Amino acid sequence: MPIGADLLCETLLANGIDTCFANPGTSEMHFVAALDRQPRIRCVLGLFEGVVTGAADGYARMADRPAATLLHTGPGLANGLANLHNARRARTPMVNIVGDHATYHLELDAPLTSDIEGLARPMSNWVGRADHVTTLVPRTEEAIRAAHAGQGQIATLILPADAAWTETDAPLPQPVALPVQSAPDAARIAEAVAALRNGRRTTILVAGRALRAASLETLQRIATRTGARILAQQSNARVERGTGRVAIERVPYPIDMQLVTFADTEQVILIGARAPVGFFAYPGKPGSMLPPGCRVLDMTAPDADLPAAVQALADGVGAGRDAPLVLNTALRPDAPAGGLTAEKVAASVARHLPDHAILCDEAVTSARNIFGITHGAAPHDFLQLTGGAIGIGLPLAMGAAIACPGRKVVALQADGSGMYTLQALWTMARERCDVVVVIYANRRYNILHGELQAVGAGQPGENARRMLDLDNPHLDWVRMAEGMGVEAARAETAEAFDDLFRVACASRGPFLIEAVI
Amino acid sequence: MPIGADLLCETLLANGIDTCFANPGTSEMHFVAALDRQPRIRCVLGLFEGVVTGAADGYARMADRPAATLLHTGPGLANGLANLHNARRARTPMVNIVGDHATYHLELDAPLTSDIEGLARPMSNWVGRADHVTTLVPRTEEAIRAAHAGQGQIATLILPADAAWTETDAPLPQPVALPVQSAPDAARIAEAVAALRNGRRTTILVAGRALRAASLETLQRIATRTGARILAQQSNARVERGTGRVAIERVPYPIDMQLVTFADTEQVILIGARAPVGFFAYPGKPGSMLPPGCRVLDMTAPDADLPAAVQALADGVGAGRDAPLVLNTALRPDAPAGGLTAEKVAASVARHLPDHAILCDEAVTSARNIFGITHGAAPHDFLQLTGGAIGIGLPLAMGAAIACPGRKVVALQADGSGMYTLQALWTMARERCDVVVVIYANRRYNILHGELQAVGAGQPGENARRMLDLDNPHLDWVRMAEGMGVEAARAETAEAFDDLFRVACASRGPFLIEAVI
Repeated sequence: MPIGADLLCETLLANGIDTCFANPGTSEMHFVAALDRQPRIRCVLGLFEGVVTGAADGYARMADRPAATLLHTGPGLANGLANLHNARRARTPMVNIVGDHATYHLELDAPLTSDIEGLARPMSNWVGRADHVTTLVPRTEEAIRAAHAGQGQIATLILPADAAWTETDAPLPQPVALPVQSAPDAARIAEAVAALRNGRRTTILVAGRALRAASLETLQRIATRTGARILAQQSNARVERGTGRVAIERVPYPIDMQLVTFADTEQVILIGARAPVGFFAYPGKPGSMLPPGCRVLDMTAPDADLPAAVQALADGVGAGRDAPLVLNTALRPDAPAGGLTAEKVAASVARHLPDHAILCDEAVTSARNIFGITHGAAPHDFLQLTGGAIGIGLPLAMGAAIACPGRKVVALQADGSGMYTLQALWTMARERCDVVVVIYANRRYNILHGELQAVGAGQPGENARRMLDLDNPHLDWVRMAEGMGVEAARAETAEAFDDLFRVACASRGPFLIEAVI
Repeated sequence: MPIGADLLCETLLANGIDTCFANPGTSEMHFVAALDRQPRIRCVLGLFEGVVTGAADGYARMADRPAATLLHTGPGLANGLANLHNARRARTPMVNIVGDHATYHLELDAPLTSDIEGLARPMSNWVGRADHVTTLVPRTEEAIRAAHAGQGQIATLILPADAAWTETDAPLPQPVALPVQSAPDAARIAEAVAALRNGRRTTILVAGRALRAASLETLQRIATRTGARILAQQSNARVERGTGRVAIERVPYPIDMQLVTFADTEQVILIGARAPVGFFAYPGKPGSMLPPGCRVLDMTAPDADLPAAVQALADGVGAGRDAPLVLNTALRPDAPAGGLTAEKVAASVARHLPDHAILCDEAVTSARNIFGITHGAAPHDFLQLTGGAIGIGLPLAMGAAIACPGRKVVALQADGSGMYTLQALWTMARERCDVVVVIYANRRYNILHGELQAVGAGQPGENARRMLDLDNPHLDWVRMAEGMGVEAARAETAEAFDDLFRVACASRGPFLIEAVI
């Protein structure tokens, strides 16, 4: 007779979830056994839970549907929370399954017992527990619906071992009705249309699925028609861009540049985006990036169909569906030469990026120029760190590669943040993910050197340097990658990097380049 | 004029906290600047927060006083939670300082904003927030007192950036009165004394500081006098043992062995310990390991001075302070030969362990024989994984080495759990920690193979194998260690391991041996 865990697998499959990033433990063994009986689910092992949740994020951003994760009790969930934070900020759909002790075992407070709900809540949009085999299917369905709600949500289902292991003759689960995104809100659209006609300087701030190629074309037509400026949020889950597509700029990261960006703005229309705020607070500087008196119109409901809303706005302002567009033309920088810098790395990336690559950016300070130089690169998807919790880059790239086996993934990775979840390299090797990892080896938390200056601390002394520099010894990424089965090489000149990157892009399978900058 | 962060540093120092394991971010830059002005605090960088909290645990277990940690906002804390879970179960004193946005910035819900209190609570005994520079010193003092309460606690202080950066002319903080552990409770002692005279088969279950050498001698005298059996908890923060000390056995891990261990027990006296329960629940097996009707006496209050309680019990039963003892004599196994196994690794460890070494055990299935074979090894401290959250071994060893620079640390590390926080190797290299790391490379989550069998799943298929085996590719620990600046070598025979381990123990500085078993 099937057990609860078998039904859980069937519920996932019935609702289109067939990929499970996992790091199981003892309390999940019945679920593992059920997965073993159900080969239609692809199980991908991560050697640390931050790898698991970050990969599920990358997968869903590219597949446009959730993956499941399998995590072991409270500590296993805790290890995955930072990347759940990022995924929640990215509005990524995800179904986490967190094993727990059998219900009757909890009161004994065995060593691994912890408050899993308490841990899950801060980084989840939905938290539930299947406290009996009879509630397992409905709770799982609830979790899947929650994952699909809004623009995409984090659903965390706690699975006690006895709910998983109990036999059941319940019928096979059927697909559930998933939430449908809401149609454009006529009143909000009309308000936005009126705003675009009132002669004020307007920025339309865009996020989510409105950053796919078709919506960006529509947005450009709206801008041309109305004179409004279109900007993407600072950090975005996914932007479709490159040659043949519309160029869109992002809100910059440094607070002073943000303030300049919005200094003249009289009104902001939000499409799936949030009003811009400082990433951090700085003494004597404002928190909101908008000038005093700037009007803010939120054009979309939390669960809005964003591309439909964009189209409705275009129709409202009379931006013709066939109006001419200015699209990026291919613009490949010349081969860089001499000492290697972050700028020269970016030039090589722009030169050699394969068609329809997926470009994952967790290069922090080193890739601030990458966006500008890749407008004319081959068409690609651009995936960012959305929640500021470093350590997503390598897992994100791995998950994207699992979702899109036919596409090259390029991971632009700072060394400091790369160390957080370097275990993802092993999964890339095992799953033969087609990923080129570029490590920007500046051997320091460069962003913090800047921030220490910004707080007026002057030149760092012994204690500060010891907390901000990744030196003495420096990290040898080639050996670390090889240690996890990923072929790797080091580049110390622009010529060497350009050559390595070109060859890696033309080959298949994971390859890491340590770019010493 | 000093700022809040300066006062925080002075409060730590005034109360004996002079070591800070850290991974800071932007919101902690004023605290970093303050640490930079205060060289009496030693700052140790970890390249991931699990390294930071695990090291603070190892430090405090050996130093018998708390270290501080410095963590960056909710995600930084989240990354450290699994090892906080272990430290809480070890009753380790610790003061975590978690930076947060400036108070007025929180309402803007900037990307890194999260519910830090919510994240902290499940793994902390005390959580507080210094919401203004004027409350910073009292809140920090409260945190330090909380860390010293009971047998040792996890105190987590949230530090908003503006409380840290605001100038203050408050006076320099003075030492606070720390909690004093409670004297033996006469009624409880009398009850235990009476129990030891009632003729029933009795086990005295011991934990915490009652596992130091002097208390273990007293416990042996109690056992000799009364016929009671003395057992240590299954997982202990620290046991003093080896040649010239009293041998104490532990409660075994496998549930069937636990049940056998207590099958005849009619009463249990707890000294800082908890009644034994199954680490996990298994279908059809009990949760409590004690037979029905077994009487349980808790002899000590939560904040009891455990060595004093042990002495009071000895006095109560008339176990003379000069009664003869049976102490471990030196018993060094012969040199092992042939193919390498976990047992042969243990033999070499027992042969060559230096005097007063610190032996950290996160070898999971591979070191189940290590305890027995090291009764006659050189005198040493034995540190275990206390909460079941894997990934503490390497950080624990690093922190212990920081606390005890004159002592050799030996880390017995399973490969699966070692991957969780391998970044600790880099800190070992940077701080020149005197640690020999032994990786048991069985290339699988061996414990889960056993557990999968235990749930009756039979031979693992494709999905199960992909989640339980660490192969294809296998991990090359030598390259990974070298990539982080730690010298390393691989042993595939017992002779090679014995030789490598002997030389590493006789040398100084970090060295890793990958023992292929």
